[in-house]
Amino acid sequence: MSVVIDGLQYANWSEKIFRQMRAGGVDAVHVTITYHESFRETVLNIEAWNRQFERFPDLIFQGFGAEDVTRAKETGRTAIFFGAQNPSCIEDDIGLVEVLHRLGLRFMQLTYNNQSLLATGCYEAEDTGLTRMGREVVAEMNRVGLVVDMSHSSERSTLEAIAHSTRPIAITHANPATWHAARRNKSDRVLGALAESGGMLGFSLYPHHLQGGGGCTVSSFCEMVARTVDRMGVERLGIGSDLCQDQPDSVVDWMRSGRWTKAVDYGEGSADAPGFPPMLEWFQDNRHFGAISDGLRAVGMSIAEVEAIMGGNWLRFFRESFGPNEAAL
Amino acid sequence: MSVVIDGLQYANWSEKIFRQMRAGGVDAVHVTITYHESFRETVLNIEAWNRQFERFPDLIFQGFGAEDVTRAKETGRTAIFFGAQNPSCIEDDIGLVEVLHRLGLRFMQLTYNNQSLLATGCYEAEDTGLTRMGREVVAEMNRVGLVVDMSHSSERSTLEAIAHSTRPIAITHANPATWHAARRNKSDRVLGALAESGGMLGFSLYPHHLQGGGGCTVSSFCEMVARTVDRMGVERLGIGSDLCQDQPDSVVDWMRSGRWTKAVDYGEGSADAPGFPPMLEWFQDNRHFGAISDGLRAVGMSIAEVEAIMGGNWLRFFRESFGPNEAAL
Repeated sequence: MSVVIDGLQYANWSEKIFRQMRAGGVDAVHVTITYHESFRETVLNIEAWNRQFERFPDLIFQGFGAEDVTRAKETGRTAIFFGAQNPSCIEDDIGLVEVLHRLGLRFMQLTYNNQSLLATGCYEAEDTGLTRMGREVVAEMNRVGLVVDMSHSSERSTLEAIAHSTRPIAITHANPATWHAARRNKSDRVLGALAESGGMLGFSLYPHHLQGGGGCTVSSFCEMVARTVDRMGVERLGIGSDLCQDQPDSVVDWMRSGRWTKAVDYGEGSADAPGFPPMLEWFQDNRHFGAISDGLRAVGMSIAEVEAIMGGNWLRFFRESFGPNEAAL
Repeated sequence: MSVVIDGLQYANWSEKIFRQMRAGGVDAVHVTITYHESFRETVLNIEAWNRQFERFPDLIFQGFGAEDVTRAKETGRTAIFFGAQNPSCIEDDIGLVEVLHRLGLRFMQLTYNNQSLLATGCYEAEDTGLTRMGREVVAEMNRVGLVVDMSHSSERSTLEAIAHSTRPIAITHANPATWHAARRNKSDRVLGALAESGGMLGFSLYPHHLQGGGGCTVSSFCEMVARTVDRMGVERLGIGSDLCQDQPDSVVDWMRSGRWTKAVDYGEGSADAPGFPPMLEWFQDNRHFGAISDGLRAVGMSIAEVEAIMGGNWLRFFRESFGPNEAAL
């Protein structure tokens, strides 16, 4: 059974988007539920999701394990898996790792652009790698089955997370820096270590991560994917669209500036273009995953390879990653 | 398969007590994890329990459903089910009902002695019944499978909770007031409405709830149980020992006075006897459940009746109560 899984989205969720996910045949999505929010604020975000689940049971439900992806496929719905883009939600308390995992958190970035209590973000000048707490928290995440995500982290921290983690990690939404040298894209060294450790890369469709930005063509994107298959192996790759549909620009302010600065941090944007960039003409929303699979076929990939990248690899990774570590039992 | 289930304990948990539960053949316990604690403080208490589960996996594990009781029996361990004695843990936020249920909360008292946001406690002078929020929260508890517990509530509030709840409720730890007229014990009117609605009464062994206090004999206790069987039917009854083993008296201060008074409230105690009362000679700790089952046989109950009261009824109630309301699906 082939499935479509998106490795990261952060939309302004609504019935319209849930229906677009059904129209696009999206069986599961890893959704960001929190950035700089405290634990209590994150729980409020979970409560808001619970209301969506209660309101739209025919369209969505919360996913906890890989079996929920097949259940979604079989019942014509989309399974929603929770993730955090920064570890603010665990505050200074390692005990919250297990608590948030129980509430369904399945991915957590160790950093979002800045230094955190755990590791260094990709916008810091100095990267000191995993902190003392970072090493403890990665071990606890390994124990309970919460995936380490290093999408917004810096080089050394990412390499140390890959090395220190006893289970494969993910870079849910980024592209190879050799294709487009953005600060958020990843070096060959990182991608090689990620592949070797059994980790996953989700290809981003966020314009700032693309060669040519919003003008990137589907064939350029798909040729990049094919070249990454040659480098990392097809089984290490998925999609992590980074779709931020229908969000007001106040949200990108929160993502970038949180409560850590009184000024405005433009992140990947600039003073001239401070908001969300317009999405690609060929990937506007969840209805357009077919453009990617068609494009991957057009650059010569087999049906089996395309199915693996569109969801099969994430499904295997979910199965291996979301439960307690067998070694810990 | 016969099981032993205790409907309420609040001990100062330790390996010693977990081993006593094994020695006493206790398959499952509803443990109080919070009184006046806020949501965040309650989560800290859950974190402390998670560390106990991690440390003593051969003795205990967290229970979520009735199937965990049989798993405990089969693997020679005790399943621990969480409960709250006051609704402080949901603060003013109905969304926390589902969140705490996800974290394993299976019982919540609507009040602890005082007026709460939901209902009236048994020490208030006026009982105004369920509040507006109380009615909403009971409906939400019904939806997700969080049992309403009225052990420390006042008469009218209890009757209204029984009437308003669409699922059977529990009085996890109290005795009939006709046997011992304590403020915490329950009138025939309450016990009749409870039985008629399919609810459960857990018999308390806390000295303040017993005829003769700490001098109550096992035969007096068991004769009271037998008389309650005549009144309510055997299937409505279980044990809720209210065992507060090894707790320092600072804990009973917190239970009674929380943060609501700067003075000392003695609750069921007094200025002369402000601490926990000494437990019964024949029921000191978890090793002594056999004294109750032997005593019930001695007053003429059948083996089947004794097994129902010692755990079979709670097991059936757990099976019917801890999942989502079918009508809500």
